[in-house]
Amino acid sequence: MAAIRFGNLSVFTARSSLKDKTWLSMSVKHTCAMKAGQGTNGQIRSKVLAIDSMNPHVKKIEYAVRGPIVIRAGELEKELQQGEKKKFNSILRANIGDCHATGQEPLIFLRQVLALCLYPQLMQDSSFPEDAKQRASRFLSACGGNSIGAYSDSAGVSVVREDIAKYISERDGIPADPENIYLGTGASEGIRNVLKLMMTSLEGNERAGVMIPIPQYPLYTATLSEYNAYPINYYLDESSNWSLSVEELKRSMTEARPHCKPKAICVINPGNPTGQVLTRKNIEDIIKFAHEENLFILADEVYQHNVYAEGSEFHSFKKVMMEMGSPYSEMELASFMSTSKGYMGECGLRGGYVELVNLDPDVIVQFRKALSAKLCCAVTGQAAMNVIVNPPKPGEPSYELFEQQKNTVLNQLKEKGKMMSDMFNSIDGITCNPVQGAMYAFPKIDIPKKAVEAAQAKGIAADALYCFNLLEETGMCVVPGSGFGQREGTWHFRTTILPPVQQMKEMLSKFGDFHSKFMDTYS
Amino acid sequence: MAAIRFGNLSVFTARSSLKDKTWLSMSVKHTCAMKAGQGTNGQIRSKVLAIDSMNPHVKKIEYAVRGPIVIRAGELEKELQQGEKKKFNSILRANIGDCHATGQEPLIFLRQVLALCLYPQLMQDSSFPEDAKQRASRFLSACGGNSIGAYSDSAGVSVVREDIAKYISERDGIPADPENIYLGTGASEGIRNVLKLMMTSLEGNERAGVMIPIPQYPLYTATLSEYNAYPINYYLDESSNWSLSVEELKRSMTEARPHCKPKAICVINPGNPTGQVLTRKNIEDIIKFAHEENLFILADEVYQHNVYAEGSEFHSFKKVMMEMGSPYSEMELASFMSTSKGYMGECGLRGGYVELVNLDPDVIVQFRKALSAKLCCAVTGQAAMNVIVNPPKPGEPSYELFEQQKNTVLNQLKEKGKMMSDMFNSIDGITCNPVQGAMYAFPKIDIPKKAVEAAQAKGIAADALYCFNLLEETGMCVVPGSGFGQREGTWHFRTTILPPVQQMKEMLSKFGDFHSKFMDTYS
Repeated sequence: MAAIRFGNLSVFTARSSLKDKTWLSMSVKHTCAMKAGQGTNGQIRSKVLAIDSMNPHVKKIEYAVRGPIVIRAGELEKELQQGEKKKFNSILRANIGDCHATGQEPLIFLRQVLALCLYPQLMQDSSFPEDAKQRASRFLSACGGNSIGAYSDSAGVSVVREDIAKYISERDGIPADPENIYLGTGASEGIRNVLKLMMTSLEGNERAGVMIPIPQYPLYTATLSEYNAYPINYYLDESSNWSLSVEELKRSMTEARPHCKPKAICVINPGNPTGQVLTRKNIEDIIKFAHEENLFILADEVYQHNVYAEGSEFHSFKKVMMEMGSPYSEMELASFMSTSKGYMGECGLRGGYVELVNLDPDVIVQFRKALSAKLCCAVTGQAAMNVIVNPPKPGEPSYELFEQQKNTVLNQLKEKGKMMSDMFNSIDGITCNPVQGAMYAFPKIDIPKKAVEAAQAKGIAADALYCFNLLEETGMCVVPGSGFGQREGTWHFRTTILPPVQQMKEMLSKFGDFHSKFMDTYS
Repeated sequence: MAAIRFGNLSVFTARSSLKDKTWLSMSVKHTCAMKAGQGTNGQIRSKVLAIDSMNPHVKKIEYAVRGPIVIRAGELEKELQQGEKKKFNSILRANIGDCHATGQEPLIFLRQVLALCLYPQLMQDSSFPEDAKQRASRFLSACGGNSIGAYSDSAGVSVVREDIAKYISERDGIPADPENIYLGTGASEGIRNVLKLMMTSLEGNERAGVMIPIPQYPLYTATLSEYNAYPINYYLDESSNWSLSVEELKRSMTEARPHCKPKAICVINPGNPTGQVLTRKNIEDIIKFAHEENLFILADEVYQHNVYAEGSEFHSFKKVMMEMGSPYSEMELASFMSTSKGYMGECGLRGGYVELVNLDPDVIVQFRKALSAKLCCAVTGQAAMNVIVNPPKPGEPSYELFEQQKNTVLNQLKEKGKMMSDMFNSIDGITCNPVQGAMYAFPKIDIPKKAVEAAQAKGIAADALYCFNLLEETGMCVVPGSGFGQREGTWHFRTTILPPVQQMKEMLSKFGDFHSKFMDTYS
């Protein structure tokens, strides 16, 4: 059996029901080989670009949220569509925070504004409310030729940047400047663009180092791999609800120092995949630590609307930093936001922004220049972001419906988060911290020694074995903890809390049965 | 006077009417300094990220299409809005192929489909034609949860990939496979993603080398800078209508070989900024050369609909390569397309795709994995691309209007291209090749020695001096040839052929006056 490796880490490379070929090599054959005169006997003429000659940093990228288990889920889905009989009737995609894909209804007001921007003839349509028309008119007036089809400034459409600054100012009670706001393709692109600034091609203790939480959202390790930066892993404390201790930050920094030049710390709040919400005190401690160590702060705050737990509250890094006063208020910070999460869940529109605070003006020139070579991000995503930062106000015709849709989504997420952690905690051998925020549960599973050995024999991680089995037995697609990082010897998986309540109830009941069976098989 | 440099090349760094500060440092101060406790006396506390500690490869990026002259144009525009008196009443942005910004009307059918995708409630609206509804329904049926707000597969929405393959098959009479198609944020992202595969962090004669045309579209040099690859410049022959000679390819290769490991050749056809359309014979020669030298071919074919000259015809590299048979038909090729150009000009929607032909299956696995870490490109841009590759057919309700809009745009571009080159050629000291295709004229200007010296004294290129002056005197914003590359001692600028006919006539008349005055000043 050929092992398929996605880089240096062996995360999960095959499935249990493997026959003579791996599923991945099968699917790859399907996609691209035997297309242009290549023999089917394995003889492949030498390529300009081969695995040994290609960019080695790209090879090191890992991205489990769309990894082999997810590819396998797609294959199963196709087989079901073709009428194959399975133990389940459909795939439950709990691997990715893809709100609309799991049935969440789009916000009507947001879609009305977008439809008006794309097809301004609808301005004459009396069924569209005035506030939607007003938003669309204002947006279009700032577009080249009044068209959403014109390129925007590379930083984004001016009125969107203005409205974002106003949103941030009102959120924090701290001024924000439109000139510090840069729109992007989701939050991901902004994160990549900012991290890219830090990177050098230097090696040894001059190699750029970036602190990242473990468990983390794998965009961070993927980007660090691509730019050959050194990941400084700091572990979140599962035993105290995934909190972040300064002692652990110091430990990781001490260990990393001989291997790199530490430049930045990434914090995800509310946490992905871990769902914790940082306290204000915790944020202050992180800022003090970053100041002592002279680190640039990257605050991934895309779940700022997704806070559910009693007593939990979202505090932006910027607000806390500014309120701490000098010298903290002068630190360099990048804060990221997205249209993909929150209550809107408009992932496909790929809206996002970064606010850059206190950056060196010369660096900003370089940042803008690098942005300009990409022209601009999708102007449709910018229009969506505009709605989120400038939603209907009390007294406007769409206010009540908008608030109702928003609260329904957030209340359901709160309910489902609790349902999920309660259920997991009711099963022997599984423990799950409460979902304080974001969109995920990250339960710990006690995997029996025999299963760990069986996974090792297949060259995959034990939680990958667990998740592949879960998929094949129940149709549930979740992501193994090894895709996010975890303390050695512990095993987890990440599941979204997005499926509709009824579907989630069925899923959780099937899950219990699967777990018992798995434990029996390997006990 | 502080010189602002955008990297290693000094392209244009100041304007003629400079006082005690450069315009660029002024605008940067405006954007980001003095925001958080920094003194105004020039004392800036040390930053984590400074010009000396940031990514050196990002510093080397150049992108003139949105460079200092364009930033200055934005400033002038604001000043006009604030009521300042100038020698002109508006800025004519001929610097960028931004069709809608210069008044081109969006295709009604395309916008109807998009409005339907975003706001499916419009499916009940009888004013929307059935073919638009059918396209939208088909597209949404392939989206997660039937919503354009769901993430797509990282490669793109399945039906779009299928329709693109069908479009390519029909265009070339050669089969295309949907599995080889990857959607992206415009063509730019695809170009970056494919070039990225070639790069290594190796130096000396192991450093990756990529052949690019000079003059070129600066995305190529920008990307090569960012990934520290070696640009192998081959010069297009201005004296024979910017044709591409194999002798020149060989010369550039011979010169480059000690400095890099050549991996790929980029060809832009129809040409940007040069507007030539390659003959089939020329393409065959390039393919043979690439085969001899074992090069991967990147064919930038985003202007495939923009061919105007009698006797010129678009031939895709894929078609020619396949028709040449083995071994050429087995070569590795990436062909790029966009929704931004053509007759649709939907730049802001950022739709694009790449077709990858004959790639090593292992490399494809890596390519897909790297894509997946970016999640997906904007699904709205994918929907726009779907319309372009599957437009209304004869007999469908929108067919006639669509064809009429399409032909109007293409006929006007043809007319304006001719008008522009004729006018330039009527001026003493300016010569301009015919605009066979694409959207630009790239005239050569004989700049007097005194002007070259004046520019040198300011630390800028002579054509940058010319273009800054043109902007300040007439409001016309064009891009100096030095931003695209040109033979040493020659000077050019690129202007789009997009402005409406009447506006273009006025512009060309003002241009003649400016040119005479410039020549007088420096003769």
